[in-house]
Amino acid sequence: MGLTIAQKIIREHLVSGEMTVGSDIGLKIDQTLTQDATGTMAYLEFEAMGVDRVKTEKSVAYIDHNTLQTGFENADDHRFIQSVAKKHGIWFSRPGNGICHQVHLERFGIPGKTLIGSDSHTPTGGGIGMLAIGAGGLDVAVAMGGGAYHINMPKMLRVNLTGRLPAWVSAKDVILKVLQVLTVKGGVGKIVEYAGEGVASLTVPERATITNMGAELGATTSIFPSDTVTRQFLAAQGREADWKPLSSDADAVYDEEITIDLSALEPMAACPHSPDNVKTVRELTGMKIDQVCIGSCTNSSYLDMMRVASILKGKTAADTVSLAIAPGSKQVYNMLAKNGALGDIIGAGARVLECACGPCIGMGQSPNSAGISLRTFNRNFEGRSGTADGQIFLVSPETAAASALTGVLTDPRTLGDEAAIPMPNAFLINDNMVIAPATPEDAKNVKILRGPNIKPFPTTTPLADSISAKALLKVGDNITTDHIMPAGAKILPYRSNIPYLSNFCFTVCDKEFPARAKEYGKGIIVGGQNYGQGSSREHAALVPLYLGIQAVLVKSFARIHCANLANAGILPLVFEAESDYDRIDEMDDLSLPQVRTELENAQPITVKNETKGFTFRAKAQLTNRQREMVLAGGLLNYTKQQNG
Amino acid sequence: MGLTIAQKIIREHLVSGEMTVGSDIGLKIDQTLTQDATGTMAYLEFEAMGVDRVKTEKSVAYIDHNTLQTGFENADDHRFIQSVAKKHGIWFSRPGNGICHQVHLERFGIPGKTLIGSDSHTPTGGGIGMLAIGAGGLDVAVAMGGGAYHINMPKMLRVNLTGRLPAWVSAKDVILKVLQVLTVKGGVGKIVEYAGEGVASLTVPERATITNMGAELGATTSIFPSDTVTRQFLAAQGREADWKPLSSDADAVYDEEITIDLSALEPMAACPHSPDNVKTVRELTGMKIDQVCIGSCTNSSYLDMMRVASILKGKTAADTVSLAIAPGSKQVYNMLAKNGALGDIIGAGARVLECACGPCIGMGQSPNSAGISLRTFNRNFEGRSGTADGQIFLVSPETAAASALTGVLTDPRTLGDEAAIPMPNAFLINDNMVIAPATPEDAKNVKILRGPNIKPFPTTTPLADSISAKALLKVGDNITTDHIMPAGAKILPYRSNIPYLSNFCFTVCDKEFPARAKEYGKGIIVGGQNYGQGSSREHAALVPLYLGIQAVLVKSFARIHCANLANAGILPLVFEAESDYDRIDEMDDLSLPQVRTELENAQPITVKNETKGFTFRAKAQLTNRQREMVLAGGLLNYTKQQNG
Repeated sequence: MGLTIAQKIIREHLVSGEMTVGSDIGLKIDQTLTQDATGTMAYLEFEAMGVDRVKTEKSVAYIDHNTLQTGFENADDHRFIQSVAKKHGIWFSRPGNGICHQVHLERFGIPGKTLIGSDSHTPTGGGIGMLAIGAGGLDVAVAMGGGAYHINMPKMLRVNLTGRLPAWVSAKDVILKVLQVLTVKGGVGKIVEYAGEGVASLTVPERATITNMGAELGATTSIFPSDTVTRQFLAAQGREADWKPLSSDADAVYDEEITIDLSALEPMAACPHSPDNVKTVRELTGMKIDQVCIGSCTNSSYLDMMRVASILKGKTAADTVSLAIAPGSKQVYNMLAKNGALGDIIGAGARVLECACGPCIGMGQSPNSAGISLRTFNRNFEGRSGTADGQIFLVSPETAAASALTGVLTDPRTLGDEAAIPMPNAFLINDNMVIAPATPEDAKNVKILRGPNIKPFPTTTPLADSISAKALLKVGDNITTDHIMPAGAKILPYRSNIPYLSNFCFTVCDKEFPARAKEYGKGIIVGGQNYGQGSSREHAALVPLYLGIQAVLVKSFARIHCANLANAGILPLVFEAESDYDRIDEMDDLSLPQVRTELENAQPITVKNETKGFTFRAKAQLTNRQREMVLAGGLLNYTKQQNG
Repeated sequence: MGLTIAQKIIREHLVSGEMTVGSDIGLKIDQTLTQDATGTMAYLEFEAMGVDRVKTEKSVAYIDHNTLQTGFENADDHRFIQSVAKKHGIWFSRPGNGICHQVHLERFGIPGKTLIGSDSHTPTGGGIGMLAIGAGGLDVAVAMGGGAYHINMPKMLRVNLTGRLPAWVSAKDVILKVLQVLTVKGGVGKIVEYAGEGVASLTVPERATITNMGAELGATTSIFPSDTVTRQFLAAQGREADWKPLSSDADAVYDEEITIDLSALEPMAACPHSPDNVKTVRELTGMKIDQVCIGSCTNSSYLDMMRVASILKGKTAADTVSLAIAPGSKQVYNMLAKNGALGDIIGAGARVLECACGPCIGMGQSPNSAGISLRTFNRNFEGRSGTADGQIFLVSPETAAASALTGVLTDPRTLGDEAAIPMPNAFLINDNMVIAPATPEDAKNVKILRGPNIKPFPTTTPLADSISAKALLKVGDNITTDHIMPAGAKILPYRSNIPYLSNFCFTVCDKEFPARAKEYGKGIIVGGQNYGQGSSREHAALVPLYLGIQAVLVKSFARIHCANLANAGILPLVFEAESDYDRIDEMDDLSLPQVRTELENAQPITVKNETKGFTFRAKAQLTNRQREMVLAGGLLNYTKQQNG
């Protein structure tokens, strides 16, 4: 039987398990990446493992999140990461060098390799034919130490692309269409593979836009074939030697298949507050807007910026619009500065921001109260912009630039002929902002620079025989990691300081939660469907851990967060009967009298509601390996056990 | 008897008073400027005056301080200012258009005109021969309404410049030398005029660097002649018609005079934590540095940036240095983008920030803990960088760029031959980011956009017959406006919200003060020498006003803060006998039984310490005009009285 692209890469990297859908598989990881908001913690974890030098082919530490630096904490974190990288064999991409996914695609990604990154948009690498997966920092730390990365073998979903994109319709519109069809849950437990005649018409950066935002499908990852387009891109990056062809077998079997006719697409927009709340721009045309932001790991490539520059050239952003633009990498930025396009962008009145994630993660450029902001980003969750009542619409760079000029949502197809923007035959290559690690001998003398905001990783203990705690919080469906551990410009700088962060845990849902958790010292969270969707941040597990949360009992979990809970040693439980959710009130006393024995024996977990006087059953959502991990008190303890 | 340049401009603008040193003079104001951190309040005050349209020749509202936008407040403030500007006849410089002083010099400054601005570095305009003075927002509001601006007639201090600057020595080194000679108090009560053969060798942007940082001398302002160099600059800005010649009479009399031999200067640095703590770069050579920041209203001109680009070209910022660069205006930024210099800057690994004040006001790019930061800025006060133990050194762009490459403080004279950077014959002129006000008819339909963070200006009432209140706080000597009303990236966004700011009033000295003030609803502050030194922010008067402070009783005042108290309608009192300070304890009951009558009659104010049972006398530190102002309940009420 033939294999899909992902199955081929998995087979080549399989170190444990069977490639049958749903079973735990361990993968050898070739490359890792971190960004700084998750990276400090990941490297603290790596240090805690006691490994001298990374065992991957290439590990890269990027600085792209906490770049505003409104206090000493960020610069301290950057220096800490830089020193750890130098000492332990990791490449360091300096602040100003760009967004991790954009830079990794340009300079490091290799078709057919495995990559995990402590950022949920790591699947960007699928645009170049990598198996690139977002993971918790602890998973990345383990992979850097040479450990396997474990997932459940995903289903395969094939997206057939037919036809070619019409003028003014772009890759962003493709993924918005896919989101409209599949919804934010449509990719859960699946790898999305793009195939069909339409693939060849898409450049690598366009493919990367699609795989990037595949994260919003809830997919494990998304991937494109590696073909002559990929080869040309790598050649233009001076890396043709990294190319290898990669495609699915003609008789590969997919669990699902959909077809998108590129030629039938039109400009789309994801409306507040979900990436799958998609309408056509046509339906929304004329809506007054207050802000336009162009950039982020989704849409900040050279091609995207050149298209924007060509729309803005000689014009001026509407009086009523604040237009902010951040190129995705120093390579892109430098090319725009050299070829004059940046002059066109500045001339049109754009506020050009540092190459970094910036407003996409709420790091600055918060819109006005109730402001309508068009963004080329990948997420429009409520409040993520830093403005609680901000109304965020996700659109293509073309739609964003066209609308910036008019002040209302504008279909770019009204702009007339589209300028042809050719892919460069040679990108401007200058890796001077990437610092190589020290040689093993020199590494001994590298001193780790640890600022006062960098607090140690919280310690964990093996699972107790029984748990007895209050249902400290009861929440509904679709709780995101932004609810559990808010980000934004005011909190993100403290990502190395779990005790401080704990004051903000769940405050979006309940301002009193941190105080209550600290008062009781332990607790259980009760939640609904799709608990923990969104960002991969492991802080959404580590902070509850710090606050004494011992189990999370929900109707269903989002994949990465569930894994992060297990990594942290918190028991992720799913109701056997969803109706039991309705029988628990906040502050009920719950007990799990035989939890350790039941978990050891892979039995359902017995839960008693002591307050209401009834017993029900829940299932530990864990692979065998994760069971052992939770019994041991988390992945770090488990890894030490395995190594010791 | 001949006149100095400043005396000539004053004579032309005098509307009240005599031009004898120390006496109150009222000046007609031709131009005003505001920035956004002080501007929102200034425009709320302007609105409270009930004037339909500004009466100045040109008033410009700039957005350059709160540009990070880590919450909705800033975008709301920007929109508020934009709508007020449109309605009331004020030009609006959009965010991204640059730093107020740099843009004003390029596009609006006119030799011989008077300018006041709600920013202490307004004297930048002196580089083009304006009489440009920093003032409180309320003073600017009054001037926009056509009222005079009052100061005490300053002394005249002449700085003779002889010789020419050697290679690699620049305008920044001139003003650092002047600061070394005169100290931060050397300019108090004076206008500094530059003269001598050396003047002709300095370009307008270089002169502006010198007048800008003249603010650090404590001077009322600084000014250069308007000569052929000025004419060429204005011609290159397409504004030759704005030029007129301006020089002092040969027999002009100066109260003081110093001589600086430009040819004997060498690169200088102001060491932590005062701009007059100046050493030669030679003395400090080799000091390891962590950060370099280039920009700010002091050093962000086209010439400065071109010099920096030429030093950085083809090189890379040292691994251990974070190099941040912000061009001063869209004009500068756009020219660098067009001529390739920006490519050189980006290529060298600089983190290019939005054209704005940025790190100079602690708005981002805070250095690491105890980090050593070289900055081309004008102030290095402790903590101003956002890092409490940051060590800030103020240097020229040349020294900054040279040091960024080596990672240690480096004398730029070690770089070899200096590239000649000619002044452009024509700057790139595109005022598309400056919005003209509405016509008077259209103005009626302009709706003011008021966000939820924008709270009304606190109301004041005429001085009561008697005051009876507790000594709510007793502080020592040298209290700064940063003690009274802290700033920084975390509080500055709330400059339009006095109620919110009140929670931080004096918390540096006493965390309980805001709660105590709110409990008692009224009070008197007791302080020592030099009370209110530092920044000109009127919030240090408005916030105490909001908290019910009725009088401030101290050993001595800093000038601008004393004026701000009078503007706010708070009575500034000085002990007749300083020993009475020691006889008052915090929370003593004080009364001023005949305060209104005594003030009306310009008599000493009787103060009773009811708790300790004794009476003493204090002097109201007020000009006659200010007495009337305090009796009326502040400048706003006073102005309404005068107009009505």
